[in-house]
Amino acid sequence: MNDAVSIAAAVRTGKVSAVEVTEAALARIAARDHELNCFTAVTTEMAIADAARIDQEIAQGNNPGLLAGVPFAVKNLFDIAGLTTLAGAKINAENPPASQDATAVTKLKQAGAVLVGALNMDEYAYGFVTENYHYGATHNPHDLQRIAGGSSGGSAAAVAAGLVPLTLGSDTNGSIRVPAALCGVFGFKPTYGRLSRAGVALFSSSFDHIGPFARSVQDIATVFDVLQGEDDRDPICTKRPPEFCLPQLHQDISDIRIAIAGDYFVKGAEPEALAAVQKVADALDVTEYVTIPEAHSARAAAFVITASEGANLHLDKLRSRPHDFDPATRDRFLAGALIPSTWYLQAQRFRRWYRDQIREVFQHVDIILAPTTPISAPLIGQKTMILDGEEILLRPHLGLFTQPLSFIGLPVLSIPIQPFNSLPLGVQLIAAPNNEALILRVAAVLEAKIGV
Amino acid sequence: MNDAVSIAAAVRTGKVSAVEVTEAALARIAARDHELNCFTAVTTEMAIADAARIDQEIAQGNNPGLLAGVPFAVKNLFDIAGLTTLAGAKINAENPPASQDATAVTKLKQAGAVLVGALNMDEYAYGFVTENYHYGATHNPHDLQRIAGGSSGGSAAAVAAGLVPLTLGSDTNGSIRVPAALCGVFGFKPTYGRLSRAGVALFSSSFDHIGPFARSVQDIATVFDVLQGEDDRDPICTKRPPEFCLPQLHQDISDIRIAIAGDYFVKGAEPEALAAVQKVADALDVTEYVTIPEAHSARAAAFVITASEGANLHLDKLRSRPHDFDPATRDRFLAGALIPSTWYLQAQRFRRWYRDQIREVFQHVDIILAPTTPISAPLIGQKTMILDGEEILLRPHLGLFTQPLSFIGLPVLSIPIQPFNSLPLGVQLIAAPNNEALILRVAAVLEAKIGV
Repeated sequence: MNDAVSIAAAVRTGKVSAVEVTEAALARIAARDHELNCFTAVTTEMAIADAARIDQEIAQGNNPGLLAGVPFAVKNLFDIAGLTTLAGAKINAENPPASQDATAVTKLKQAGAVLVGALNMDEYAYGFVTENYHYGATHNPHDLQRIAGGSSGGSAAAVAAGLVPLTLGSDTNGSIRVPAALCGVFGFKPTYGRLSRAGVALFSSSFDHIGPFARSVQDIATVFDVLQGEDDRDPICTKRPPEFCLPQLHQDISDIRIAIAGDYFVKGAEPEALAAVQKVADALDVTEYVTIPEAHSARAAAFVITASEGANLHLDKLRSRPHDFDPATRDRFLAGALIPSTWYLQAQRFRRWYRDQIREVFQHVDIILAPTTPISAPLIGQKTMILDGEEILLRPHLGLFTQPLSFIGLPVLSIPIQPFNSLPLGVQLIAAPNNEALILRVAAVLEAKIGV
Repeated sequence: MNDAVSIAAAVRTGKVSAVEVTEAALARIAARDHELNCFTAVTTEMAIADAARIDQEIAQGNNPGLLAGVPFAVKNLFDIAGLTTLAGAKINAENPPASQDATAVTKLKQAGAVLVGALNMDEYAYGFVTENYHYGATHNPHDLQRIAGGSSGGSAAAVAAGLVPLTLGSDTNGSIRVPAALCGVFGFKPTYGRLSRAGVALFSSSFDHIGPFARSVQDIATVFDVLQGEDDRDPICTKRPPEFCLPQLHQDISDIRIAIAGDYFVKGAEPEALAAVQKVADALDVTEYVTIPEAHSARAAAFVITASEGANLHLDKLRSRPHDFDPATRDRFLAGALIPSTWYLQAQRFRRWYRDQIREVFQHVDIILAPTTPISAPLIGQKTMILDGEEILLRPHLGLFTQPLSFIGLPVLSIPIQPFNSLPLGVQLIAAPNNEALILRVAAVLEAKIGV
C-alpha cells in the first residue's frame, strides 16, 4: 500500500477518486479485520459521504488539502461526533454519543483525510498489550498469535496491516511507541502539550500525549504539521506558533549531534533490541554513548503518578462498579487508589529534579537513540518473559524504555526496524522539548539509508 | 506601650534613642518572658549593635527608615543569620546556623527595625496551640494558665504582653490568625504569594504565608508595605508591583460592600465569638449575610493536603528519628504519610472548583466578616471542648473558621475584640486576592469606632 502523501497526490491529480480510495480501505477492513480486531467501529456511511465531498471539491477546482482522500482511523478515546467514545471501557458504552469531533480529528478532516473508524485499545489506555477484556485482543499483523502492543494497539496494527495508511493514538507511558515497535510502523509522540488533546479521554493528564502512526517519515511529518497549533479547547496545548517540519525534512543532518543511550538503556533488553539500535547507530556513524541519569527512578515515579492520577479519575466507578472494569485494569487502579500521598508527592518532587538533569544532558547532544521495547511482540496471553535468565512479568516491562522519556514529555519517534526473518522492533529517536524537526530530519535520513 | 509607628516617630525626632528603646524591650523580655515563654532566643548583642547603628544614622542626618528603632522578633522558622533556625523542632537544633536573614527580616531591618529575638511555635508549624514538647508552652498574657494559640503563639503573645510592638509569624491553616485572636492583637495573613517566604522553613508550600502581628492597623499597614515586592529568592513570590496601603488607609469606605459570612461560619461557635462578629457588623452598619459555599469541604481538603505535604517534607526524619518529634506533631505526620494519593488528588481537584466558586462570591461583596476562632483561649493542656453540647477535640477545632480561607490564599486580617470582663476574641476581615488595601481601610474605621 502507498503512504498517505502518495495517496493524497493521486487523489489531488485525479488518478484515483477519494471515494475509490475509501471504498478500497473499507473493503480491506471488511476482509481482514475479523482476524486482526483493530476496529471497534467502522464509520462506512460517514466515510463515503466525506470522500464524495472531497471529490466534489476537486471537481470544482478547490484545494482539497494535504491529505486529500487519505483514509484514517483513531484510537477509540478520540471523540467522533455521533459515536460513543469508549476509551476501551465497557462502562463508557452506556454514554451518549460525542457531540463534536476531537480537535485532532477535525484538523485531519480539514486537511482532506477521510475518517473510516475507531480503533481498539487497552481499557482507559492503561496497558501495553491491547488484550481488551471487553472488546477482545488486537492481533499483530506479523503473527496473528502475537499481541500488537498497547495501549494504541488497534492504531498500530491497522497501519501495519495496510488497512489504512494513517491513524492516531495516545501515549502516556509508551502507548504509541510500544505498539509502533511491535507492529513495525512509525509512531510519533511529540512534546507534551504540543498537540491539542481536546476531545480526547484522558488517563493521567500530566503525561497524556497524542500522536500519529504511519508508514513513512513524510507522512508522520505531514500529520504533525497539520495537527500543530494553539487550541482554545485545550488549556494545556502550547501557545507557541507552529514550526512546520515538512519544509525542513531533507535538510543536511551533519550539524546534529547524535548519541546512543547507555547504562539503563542497554540493560534488560534482548540482544535483537540492542542490535536494532546498533543498526541505526551504524547507519548514522554514531559511536558515542550518553547517560540519561536515574532513568529507573523516572520509571518508578511514572508508575506512581499514573496509577494515582488514573485511580483518582475513575474512583467513583471503581467504587460502584468494580466488576465492570477489565480485570487487568481494575486491579492496577485499585492498587493505585491505595498509593500513599507521600509517594505521589515524592514522585512529583523527583520529576522536577529529573527534568533539570535531562535539560543538562541535551546541552551536549541533540538526538539520543534507545530501543523502544526490550523484546519483540510476545504471544497473546503470555504473562511472563525471561530476561537476563530471570522470569519477570511481561506487561509492565514492555514500557521499560519508553516510560522514562514521556515522564517529562520529551518528543520521541519510534522507527521500525525489521530484522531478517524475525519480528519487527523499534528504535526511539529522542530530542529535547520542541525539537521535533531534528527527530524527523534524522528519521528521513535513516529511512533513505536503511529503508526502515 | 506605644505602637511601632509612634516609636519610630519618637526615635526619628530624637525624643528617644533606638538604643534606649531596644534596651527597654530587652528589659521587658528579661522581666516577663520566664513566665510567658515567648522567646526561644534573644539576640541581645546584635540588637544593641543594630540600634546603635540606627542612632548613628539619625545623628548623621540620614533617613533611618519607616520603622526606625522599632524592636521586633520573628517566629523561629525565619532564618536569622548566625542562629540555627529551629522551626520548633528538636531535630533542627542540630543544624548549622543560617548564613543569611530571611528576606522579610532583611526588609524590616532595612526599614530601621531592630531584631531582638526568635519566638516559640508549634513544632514545624503544625498546630494551633504552641504547647511545644521540646521548648515548652507559650502562655497567654491575658491568663497565664491559658494557651496563646498557634502555631505562631510566641509571635502573638510577645506583642500582646507588650514585650515588642511588632513580630512576624506564618499562617498555613490559621497560624497567624488563631493566636492573634486568642491573644487580642492584630494578625495579618496577606494573599498567598504576596510576601516573600525566602528563608522561611516551609510546612506545606501551597498554603504557607507569612505576615505581621501588631497592636494597631497603621503598624500592620506599615509592615505590609515594607514587606511587599518581588523577590528573586522566592519563586512563588508575586511579580506584581507593590500597591502601598498606608496612603489609602484613611480613605472613605462607603463604597466598600461588606457582608457577614453565614451558614458554616455561624455554626459551631460559642455565642461570644458570634457576638464579636455582631459588634463589628453593628459598627459598620452591616446586616447582609453571604454564603461561602462548601467551607466544610474546604477545611477537609486543607487537612488532607497539609498532612500529605507536611508528611512528605519530613518523611526521612519520620522514618529515622520518630521519637525526636513532638508526639502531637509526629502522630499527625505519620497519619499524613498514610493518606492515599487519591484523597490528595481529589482535594486538589476540589480546590480548583472552590477557588472558582469564591471568585464568584466576590463579584457581589468586597469584605466578608467571620469569627477567627470558635472559642476564646482554652487552658494549657486542655484536650477537648464542649460545642453545641458535644465534647469534641479542641486542637483541630481552633482552625474551624480559618482553614477554609487560607486554603485558597485569600487575604485575611484578624482584628482583636475585647469583650467586657472576658478573654479576647478575633474577627476576620476577608477579601478577594490582592485586596489587602480594602481590608486595612475597613480595619482603620473599626479601630477608630470601637477601639479594637
